[in-house]
Amino acid sequence: MKLSKRITGLTGGGSDGWDVFNRARAMIAAGTPVIELTQGEHDIRTAPAILDEMHRVAKAGNTGYSPVHGTPALRDAIAARVTARTGVPTTRDNVAITPGGQPALFASHSTACDPGDTALFIDPYYATYPGTIRGVGAVPRAVAARPDHGFQPLEADIAAAADGARSLLINTPNNPTGVVYTEATLTGIARACRDHDLWLISDEVYDTQVWTGTHLSPRALPGMADRTLVIGSMSKSHAMTGSRVGWVVGPAEAIRHLVNLSTHTTYGVPGFIQDAALFALNQGPALEAQVAAPFLRRRAIAAGVLNGVNAVTSVPCDGAMYVMLDIRATAMTGEAFANALLDAEKIAVMPGESFGRAAAGHLRVAMTVDDATFEDALRRLVAFAEARLAGKPVEISA
Amino acid sequence: MKLSKRITGLTGGGSDGWDVFNRARAMIAAGTPVIELTQGEHDIRTAPAILDEMHRVAKAGNTGYSPVHGTPALRDAIAARVTARTGVPTTRDNVAITPGGQPALFASHSTACDPGDTALFIDPYYATYPGTIRGVGAVPRAVAARPDHGFQPLEADIAAAADGARSLLINTPNNPTGVVYTEATLTGIARACRDHDLWLISDEVYDTQVWTGTHLSPRALPGMADRTLVIGSMSKSHAMTGSRVGWVVGPAEAIRHLVNLSTHTTYGVPGFIQDAALFALNQGPALEAQVAAPFLRRRAIAAGVLNGVNAVTSVPCDGAMYVMLDIRATAMTGEAFANALLDAEKIAVMPGESFGRAAAGHLRVAMTVDDATFEDALRRLVAFAEARLAGKPVEISA
Repeated sequence: MKLSKRITGLTGGGSDGWDVFNRARAMIAAGTPVIELTQGEHDIRTAPAILDEMHRVAKAGNTGYSPVHGTPALRDAIAARVTARTGVPTTRDNVAITPGGQPALFASHSTACDPGDTALFIDPYYATYPGTIRGVGAVPRAVAARPDHGFQPLEADIAAAADGARSLLINTPNNPTGVVYTEATLTGIARACRDHDLWLISDEVYDTQVWTGTHLSPRALPGMADRTLVIGSMSKSHAMTGSRVGWVVGPAEAIRHLVNLSTHTTYGVPGFIQDAALFALNQGPALEAQVAAPFLRRRAIAAGVLNGVNAVTSVPCDGAMYVMLDIRATAMTGEAFANALLDAEKIAVMPGESFGRAAAGHLRVAMTVDDATFEDALRRLVAFAEARLAGKPVEISA
Repeated sequence: MKLSKRITGLTGGGSDGWDVFNRARAMIAAGTPVIELTQGEHDIRTAPAILDEMHRVAKAGNTGYSPVHGTPALRDAIAARVTARTGVPTTRDNVAITPGGQPALFASHSTACDPGDTALFIDPYYATYPGTIRGVGAVPRAVAARPDHGFQPLEADIAAAADGARSLLINTPNNPTGVVYTEATLTGIARACRDHDLWLISDEVYDTQVWTGTHLSPRALPGMADRTLVIGSMSKSHAMTGSRVGWVVGPAEAIRHLVNLSTHTTYGVPGFIQDAALFALNQGPALEAQVAAPFLRRRAIAAGVLNGVNAVTSVPCDGAMYVMLDIRATAMTGEAFANALLDAEKIAVMPGESFGRAAAGHLRVAMTVDDATFEDALRRLVAFAEARLAGKPVEISA
């Protein structure tokens, strides 16, 4: 039977850099110890108190359908949180709960774009971005954020790509680069959106993981609250990746329609998970800091290991749980380096090419293993790169 | 900001019969006792043992990302169940886990249809069907299943509507009618799908609630396994509506692409919920029979109350948790009757018009309150109809 073109053309065929990820998984499954630095998954689990609350409310009977827009209490809590963190007056009417950040991305693009519309996104990008845009029937168009600008996107590049576009998707703190967009960058992005009448879809799921300065939400910039859809999630901030709970914050009318769409795409989020998310938010900043702390520690470890190294340099790591390494001095592609590193050292990192063209010659290293293992892996990665830089032969296993 | 046409046009504006539902909710919220017979929500909760298992695996550390296609164990269990119940050889490669039946409907239509394609569905229909089709950018086209044919769709009617269509969505046991499609009906549907090269999207979420005969899955009919996507769910069979876990069963290639789409629409189902679903399935048919038992009892109560009544007659209730009442003898629309009944008797039922044109002059009564309340409500509904039939004035509160 013929499948839809949408679904068969959702992602590229052939190698897209994810073969390193898949090979590492296969090696682990076959019993080979591999240090896994490929995925944005905490090395801690969801806090037991959150799981106990989830169980308590479920046993108390909260196991039926819950409101598709989310429980009023959780929407109120997120509205209050957003108001406090951004200064933008936000009420529950501005909030739709979704089963994670990914459904929020999909719903936001469905809200902004009709089939055939063009949707902009910044390259390098989180792996699902172009497929999400294709999934709603729209056409993805990449705008490069270049390494020589510290991966900060330029207003002029967005403006040059904006003709005929309906939306722009950004992500700060950024996955895969670890870069946090500056106020100047965000001001330029906001101006480009206003000038070209674009929806801004702002993925802020790493907003509690900012290592220098503070998180700035572009929804707070002048004239932006009416054209910005902010993606949030409990996954990264509260180590609740597996609970699948997130949200969209935006103009009330857009949220109303987005919830109507959710009735047809997801039919809501388990009530007991929403209550657990509310409980987690009510723990306040201490829990968020505790969840973020390992990445802050490992960022310092990385800085120490990379200090004075020429073969590998780090993109300034200002946020999120990744450090992006520039390995262009080795004259290797990220993909070749990552594959060789996996074979020789049994260390799995993501090639920059997995995240678009702009990150070619880079590696994304997730800081998601214990400190000692992380430091050991990074030292071996550096030694591997230095051997390459010096032109020494590197033994590659089959 | 301009919203997409897709999202603003997802559902009809104005009254669609859901105002009874909304009015009943508002009355309850304001403290007025209303007997709620509008929603397909069990009056029992998810079994404590299932919730305990969910909590156990979560506390044991299953709180991170789980495979987007679903856990191998749950896919295997569903494949074995489908093989046993239908005789169609089914493996885990034929199964994708989704966060409920609604996401499975959305994913199936995305798999079958490109934007602009026509997708058929049977009227009367579950409320989300046309919006689900519009949500994927396709164009819904209704095929009426008429009361004078016992709401069994006719092959000729499907064939007459099939020109240019890519898919047909059916639902048996049926919501809202409580009808179970006969083998003859399904054979005709299957032939129409083969003759017109249609995907058959078969919503079988009520497959454990069949009161006479047995459930027949059209995927088991000759030549249909390659063109059928079956929607399943734990919601109705195991009283797990709030857990949001369901699946699609279909050809392996379609499932592979559908899972790729899920990476972009949902990013999977909580692992602790999948493990709880596996635990629930492993309880075997006893738990399913226990969950279904109240509806079987209330079906008998309804038959008793309606015996010999002329003002209200029942559509044969062969499955699902609803009884569909024909109130055309009162010369009222379903909507007028339901509104008047809510005002006069504080009993909320769904007008047939909420589910399409074919069920006009009918009411859907969910058998989802305790037996005594259900019997009382039905007796008062009958008395209300009889008063109307006799031309007696009925007092309507403001």
